[in-house]
Amino acid sequence: MLVLGLDPGLAITGYGLVESDGQHLEMVSYGVIRTAADLRLSDRLVRLHDELTALMVRWEPKVAAVEELFFSTNARTAMVVGEARGVLLLTLAQAGLAVHEYTPMQVKQAITGYGGADKHQMQHMVRLLLGLEALPEPDDAADALAVSICHHHSAGMAALLDR
Amino acid sequence: MLVLGLDPGLAITGYGLVESDGQHLEMVSYGVIRTAADLRLSDRLVRLHDELTALMVRWEPKVAAVEELFFSTNARTAMVVGEARGVLLLTLAQAGLAVHEYTPMQVKQAITGYGGADKHQMQHMVRLLLGLEALPEPDDAADALAVSICHHHSAGMAALLDR
Repeated sequence: MLVLGLDPGLAITGYGLVESDGQHLEMVSYGVIRTAADLRLSDRLVRLHDELTALMVRWEPKVAAVEELFFSTNARTAMVVGEARGVLLLTLAQAGLAVHEYTPMQVKQAITGYGGADKHQMQHMVRLLLGLEALPEPDDAADALAVSICHHHSAGMAALLDR
Repeated sequence: MLVLGLDPGLAITGYGLVESDGQHLEMVSYGVIRTAADLRLSDRLVRLHDELTALMVRWEPKVAAVEELFFSTNARTAMVVGEARGVLLLTLAQAGLAVHEYTPMQVKQAITGYGGADKHQMQHMVRLLLGLEALPEPDDAADALAVSICHHHSAGMAALLDR
């Protein structure tokens, strides 16, 4: 199962594609979608939609895992992330992907076993779990890989419970 | 010029279509798009996209005016409104409409001449300006009509300045 993980943002959205056969995780691709700040908001959202669509056409994931917003942020930031997040969720749903959402705490718990893990611990574990030689950069891409791994863990756990 | 005004929200998005020949305003249609709270978020966003698309197909507006978020709200509310707003802006831009955004204060100023006008004053003036017998309901639809009128005023003022 190939899972597309997303860490939503308007200026920069991280993505990470992780494959798993139920036993091993494999990093397929990761990176970020950037939208230029000098574009109008609606044009930035169109670009986000188009770039995500291009990713789905190229890699054909059937499942997406999206990070939920971190709510300690302010209302202005929350709205901007929400605008990007709404477009990403719409685009995934229109393409027929199953969309799962995870809070930052759920992601940290799944990756490190500890909901209060810091960014460095998270990146370290993502690197180890995927057998990468270097830390995935930028942070947004590493976060997106983490969300994808989180969904593999949740799905694997659900499959175990079904047996 | 036919202007589609929108007051964005996830549960309820108001819309109002106002036509103007540069001198007189005419209400063409108004109402709300509702998305059921028991649907998944991504399905609610798809519904919002589909309903807005249906409105654009039916009325063929070339211009949209969208209310900006009121920022005194909390981060949770801001994110949810942002998700809906992002989908609306994307949908308008994909359909090729010119999208203009106005703050609540700009709308109040345009409708009542006073940026601190209350909801009752606003509804009263919207009714008078459009020559309606009754107050447009619900509030979200009245707000959307107000945004549409606001854009007509701005566009009319810009045309005057161009002469």
